[in-house]
Amino acid sequence: MTDDASGWGAGVGDEQALDGAFSFAVQATSGRARAGRLTTPHGEVLTPCFMPVGTKATVKAVLRPALEALGAQVVLANTYHLYFRPGADLVRAHGGLHRFMDWPHPILTDSGGFQVFSLSDTRIVGDDGVEFSSVYDGSRHLFTPALAMEVQEALGADLVMSFDQCAPGTLDRDEIACAVERTTRWADECRAVQTRADQLLVGIVQGGVDEELRRRSAAQLLALDFGAYAIGGLSVGERDDQMLATVELMDELLPADRFRYFMGIGDPRGVIEVIARGVDLFDCVLPTRLARTGSAFTSEGRLNLRNARFADDLGPLDPACDCSCCRHYTRAYLRHLVNQREIAGMQLLSEHNLRVLVRLCERARQAILAGDFERFADEVRGRPDVADANERRTFQ
Amino acid sequence: MTDDASGWGAGVGDEQALDGAFSFAVQATSGRARAGRLTTPHGEVLTPCFMPVGTKATVKAVLRPALEALGAQVVLANTYHLYFRPGADLVRAHGGLHRFMDWPHPILTDSGGFQVFSLSDTRIVGDDGVEFSSVYDGSRHLFTPALAMEVQEALGADLVMSFDQCAPGTLDRDEIACAVERTTRWADECRAVQTRADQLLVGIVQGGVDEELRRRSAAQLLALDFGAYAIGGLSVGERDDQMLATVELMDELLPADRFRYFMGIGDPRGVIEVIARGVDLFDCVLPTRLARTGSAFTSEGRLNLRNARFADDLGPLDPACDCSCCRHYTRAYLRHLVNQREIAGMQLLSEHNLRVLVRLCERARQAILAGDFERFADEVRGRPDVADANERRTFQ
Repeated sequence: MTDDASGWGAGVGDEQALDGAFSFAVQATSGRARAGRLTTPHGEVLTPCFMPVGTKATVKAVLRPALEALGAQVVLANTYHLYFRPGADLVRAHGGLHRFMDWPHPILTDSGGFQVFSLSDTRIVGDDGVEFSSVYDGSRHLFTPALAMEVQEALGADLVMSFDQCAPGTLDRDEIACAVERTTRWADECRAVQTRADQLLVGIVQGGVDEELRRRSAAQLLALDFGAYAIGGLSVGERDDQMLATVELMDELLPADRFRYFMGIGDPRGVIEVIARGVDLFDCVLPTRLARTGSAFTSEGRLNLRNARFADDLGPLDPACDCSCCRHYTRAYLRHLVNQREIAGMQLLSEHNLRVLVRLCERARQAILAGDFERFADEVRGRPDVADANERRTFQ
Repeated sequence: MTDDASGWGAGVGDEQALDGAFSFAVQATSGRARAGRLTTPHGEVLTPCFMPVGTKATVKAVLRPALEALGAQVVLANTYHLYFRPGADLVRAHGGLHRFMDWPHPILTDSGGFQVFSLSDTRIVGDDGVEFSSVYDGSRHLFTPALAMEVQEALGADLVMSFDQCAPGTLDRDEIACAVERTTRWADECRAVQTRADQLLVGIVQGGVDEELRRRSAAQLLALDFGAYAIGGLSVGERDDQMLATVELMDELLPADRFRYFMGIGDPRGVIEVIARGVDLFDCVLPTRLARTGSAFTSEGRLNLRNARFADDLGPLDPACDCSCCRHYTRAYLRHLVNQREIAGMQLLSEHNLRVLVRLCERARQAILAGDFERFADEVRGRPDVADANERRTFQ
């Protein structure tokens, strides 16, 4: 059933107890691809797994019954946004995000680091943290590793992220090197101030697309012995071949018995390629954001429902899809909803696009368990939706 | 179980076969209030019944699973809007609205008459029909009784409405009298051109709040022997006491064995008062429109969730409500969603507001079946949500 277990650490099938109530087991590998099982205080996550993004404690336009129906296992919520609105104290008063947003299954919060860097033009990065202007009212704030942990402990997600400095591969090497050092220092600080045993702290590897810096960052973070590792600083403007080479390097460097989370990838092609390189978990706003503009992933490629050619199309959005949208509605109806700016259009396309990624992961997992992932991946790579020029991918 | 059966026609419990595949039975009365059962080709409607509005073939922000869960039995779709977008031919090509919008239960379409009058400043009313400018592109169009029927037959709803001239009680008496005559002539024309036996054509009584004109309109329409009657021209600016007096008059004039549809009422107080005066069916955009502005019907009165006093409120939106929103979320969470303009806020408040009206009808029906409606109505009238000044009702 399995062919190899790359890297060091526990072999296939060994259950690895992580911090507190967590465990992770690689159940099978096929090439570098891994099928795993993550256990958290709020249930299991079978990997590879795409994680819908619920930035402000709601996956936009998709409520819990629909999320459960489409097979979502874990959702991501955003520390930066929730810190400002409605504030972490309110979420804590609810007993945490699970009750606040009515999602009794696993939740991951990011650390706020990415937004601190991406949402402010006037940030000042120091060794202690980052000073920046809030997108909500322009007020100045200082985010530190300790504050990121304090907020994440109040939010109460199962998986929490260390506070990092996201350094795109397009920056100068010196800047990336500096970000690697800060990220390690901050990760150490996060680890030091963590008080909750029911949250698994994930260390984030930086280093852009520079092999030496990635090796350095990984070595420093491995020395801190995190329960899981994230690959940060990718999908932020670098070339796709550089991104994939870096993911391959990470697969070699990261311990095989900890799950790996790629931060920010959600197009079908990208998802297949990072699964093929040993990634277990990933997230992206792309499926729901595209849906709100009227676009859908389909087996014919990415379609924009505003297009006049769908005006009389009585077929389903994607005959190959098993989601509620594709089983009950026609393209012509969806086009009508999108053109009339009806909320139902956003609801249905969001459900569909999320289901496409969840199903892709489910099928990838089956292929890995069957020891047949490479054949499956090649089949997927040949599909129009994955080869689609819209995906703007430069994979060879 | 019942106390009387007002008016002439079939007594309580007699099943009255209407046109084609339809039947209606008054199962019980309590005072003037009636509990009935309407049978249509797409299932039964137990009355009194509030009908959610799906103007453009979608109840805004509420998909079928949620509509079914909250107990919606029949929805209304809008001939005017669907005629322009996406066009009746496309809906017919789907096999009608039931498949187009994925609602396999009963559907009612209005005739377009109300929008022709309310959505155009430059209409020209003639004896043949109404010329007006489309809200979509300003183009000029002529709606006639024959066209209204042709479009409604293409849309394929179970219940269809005659094309009428809506004449508010605030107009001059001569204008209202003229509208009564036109409405009768047009109703006769609608009846003459109807070809589908699987649609029940509902005649609309006009006459403003003038007793003599109402009597005249009712007599003329009764002579045409419609399978059911609607009370039009109310809830359009007249005083509430005038409106209710007119509904009482209608209760005396309309046959007891046909269902009565009050067009356009959807606040809890108004709903109770028209049920108390023998109305079986009603609709309104108010519950879903209010929801999209962050407002909710609750047992404390109408609440706007934007209000800062809900910022830390960990209680349910309405502890007396059994809807999904009230069972799973706090007011503080809902306020967060509304303030952040999250679609989930519109979804949840729409479901809640619709459930409030559906549940009010369910409870009214139980009270009628128990012969106890007046006691129930008095209890409801005393509730803050019903006595609320926000309802802007002038009932005595």
